[in-house]
Amino acid sequence: MSIQQEKLSQAVSIMNELDIDMWITLVRESETSPDPVLELTLGRNITWLSAFIITRQGDKTAIVGSLDEPGVSSTGLYPTVVPYVASMRDDMLRILSGADPGKIAVNFSTSDVLADGLSHGAYLTLKDYLKDTPYTDRLMSAGGIIGALRGRKSSEELERISCAISITEEILSELTGDLKLGLTEKNVADIITGGMKKRGLEAAWDIDHCPAVFTGPDSAGAHYSPTDREIEPGHVLNVDFGVKYLEYCSDMQRTWYFRRSSGEQIPDEVQRAFEAVRDAVRKASEALEPGIEGWKVDDVARSHITSLGYEEYPHALGHQIGRKAHDGSGLLCPRWERYGTLPFEKVEKGQVYTLEPRATIKGYGVATVEEIVVVEEKGCRFLTHPQEDLWVI
Amino acid sequence: MSIQQEKLSQAVSIMNELDIDMWITLVRESETSPDPVLELTLGRNITWLSAFIITRQGDKTAIVGSLDEPGVSSTGLYPTVVPYVASMRDDMLRILSGADPGKIAVNFSTSDVLADGLSHGAYLTLKDYLKDTPYTDRLMSAGGIIGALRGRKSSEELERISCAISITEEILSELTGDLKLGLTEKNVADIITGGMKKRGLEAAWDIDHCPAVFTGPDSAGAHYSPTDREIEPGHVLNVDFGVKYLEYCSDMQRTWYFRRSSGEQIPDEVQRAFEAVRDAVRKASEALEPGIEGWKVDDVARSHITSLGYEEYPHALGHQIGRKAHDGSGLLCPRWERYGTLPFEKVEKGQVYTLEPRATIKGYGVATVEEIVVVEEKGCRFLTHPQEDLWVI
Repeated sequence: MSIQQEKLSQAVSIMNELDIDMWITLVRESETSPDPVLELTLGRNITWLSAFIITRQGDKTAIVGSLDEPGVSSTGLYPTVVPYVASMRDDMLRILSGADPGKIAVNFSTSDVLADGLSHGAYLTLKDYLKDTPYTDRLMSAGGIIGALRGRKSSEELERISCAISITEEILSELTGDLKLGLTEKNVADIITGGMKKRGLEAAWDIDHCPAVFTGPDSAGAHYSPTDREIEPGHVLNVDFGVKYLEYCSDMQRTWYFRRSSGEQIPDEVQRAFEAVRDAVRKASEALEPGIEGWKVDDVARSHITSLGYEEYPHALGHQIGRKAHDGSGLLCPRWERYGTLPFEKVEKGQVYTLEPRATIKGYGVATVEEIVVVEEKGCRFLTHPQEDLWVI
Repeated sequence: MSIQQEKLSQAVSIMNELDIDMWITLVRESETSPDPVLELTLGRNITWLSAFIITRQGDKTAIVGSLDEPGVSSTGLYPTVVPYVASMRDDMLRILSGADPGKIAVNFSTSDVLADGLSHGAYLTLKDYLKDTPYTDRLMSAGGIIGALRGRKSSEELERISCAISITEEILSELTGDLKLGLTEKNVADIITGGMKKRGLEAAWDIDHCPAVFTGPDSAGAHYSPTDREIEPGHVLNVDFGVKYLEYCSDMQRTWYFRRSSGEQIPDEVQRAFEAVRDAVRKASEALEPGIEGWKVDDVARSHITSLGYEEYPHALGHQIGRKAHDGSGLLCPRWERYGTLPFEKVEKGQVYTLEPRATIKGYGVATVEEIVVVEEKGCRFLTHPQEDLWVI
């Protein structure tokens, strides 16, 4: 069974669980303007405006431009494929009035970008199709369906993520052997990229900052490309990196310390910051279990860090990971406005989260680790081999 | 001057021309959920919800998540970069009330997918920021700005497109030397892909069907991947292919005929169909000039094809090309509902269009050529070397 077949049948159960009658994905030129749902429910791109319609009874219909018809039919995922030339309006209305759905989910969400693949223009087109029908008032967000669909990993999905993680750990371990004073952030990035290319793999996110590499105090901060800054004695080095393996991602961070002289003890403030981060991850992992709201898990780690006198980290404790490095929906994050409803989503079995608090060490750099865990019936299980000690060079 | 600098200054003139006071691009996780405008106005990705605000006076402000701030600042494109942690609401309202714009363009369009980068969820977020302000009623589509911005190519953009075309012509000419009976569509695709990789280039669109290869009668039709079907004597072979050169695309089609015996004359019906297509391109190119509505150019080619007894082709005569193979906005297409207002857009100087009619030849295959022209002060100029005769193997 392909992942798309697996996901489509999962979607039907979720729709029944959430009491939603119909789910419409409306998308055009998906290569340029992707709806991220399509990789789960079709696994290829379409050019013309297309509608993928699923009912709670399990009917699956695609209305697509005539030139897209052979490609969509070839997937075998939609038993009914309706090709059109001039407009899909009549086909859409015919299918709607045939099924007469009470609740119709479409892909928009103010909080979850991966459930927000419907463009505003396509939304207006749909509203225009539905004007003068009862269906225009029955539209609702498909956020619940999409969040559950991406979040609840199948065993095949978990397997692929685990492989991506093993490869990342291998590359990071090779890197440790190659690290030395005087290398620039760019040199470090090149070593990692070399390890990835040797294995024929792609980076898990924008190669601009995958890997991200930061050495020493006052470095550029996350989401920034590696620079020509050299590793100096007394630097703390941080790497953030992941690969895609069979379309599934890893995302890990590790921290190294560069001794000022051979035999130098790790400075106290460096050791303490590393332990603060490591222990914040441990405590958060102990709190993470089905049913808990994400912000509470974030709060466990965040309070641990701030209670030790470190500044609050300006981001979430952790995000879900899957086909995307940031896989959307429920987030382990504070209740900041920018996160919308995400902090209040309940953790579910089968979700895979990163745990990535950070602490800034004045004069040295940033200590972070980023681990990955899967939520199980009770609690969670580490998929990474957690970094227990600073790696010292 | 980078292309983004060029485009930002072009944007300000277009806003003045269209009497628009402010243009807001609101986007998040642009790698996953790209607004296609961003490649023109930023040239990198952002993670958190970000607003790029341009006024008709030329002020350029970016409100971005704190982690994205160094990357956005490093571009030097936005003199004011405002980082936020918990929410951008207050910064957005402050900038709006400071500028007090009468017309505020945002990126949605029912017709033009490349001007429709605003997700419905992000639109709702913006509406929420603006509630209880006068600005909520001043929002309008940025389609006019974006269409002109993508359409009017600078000399640097034209240069890159021309290079992409030259390389494509080289690869297609190498292909002609390698073509022979018995090759499958997949073999032909591999030869083309090899030529592209040898040059270190990427395909102009989804490698799934770039190149697209169709041999013989009743082949799968456009937007479909190459198959194991073999080239047989008497087949008409059609290839649709383009490359990206420094981020700009080509997109060309060529047609070959495979003789049934050495010395066989090209069958009349094949020759006539090829000429119908070739002449439709010529006639359309003679009609294409600044100020004409796109549907009229399509109609010239379409009528020529149908007047000779061929079936009407189920797609547009031509699309614009640039950073995307389908570069949005004004289209040379019939007035079908699915095209919305695009057929009525007026052709402008500096736009680059494909011309790609087709004719099906019963029992042989499909005859198509796809040429590329740039619109000039008067009329248009071919950037491709048009295919004047069937290529016979």
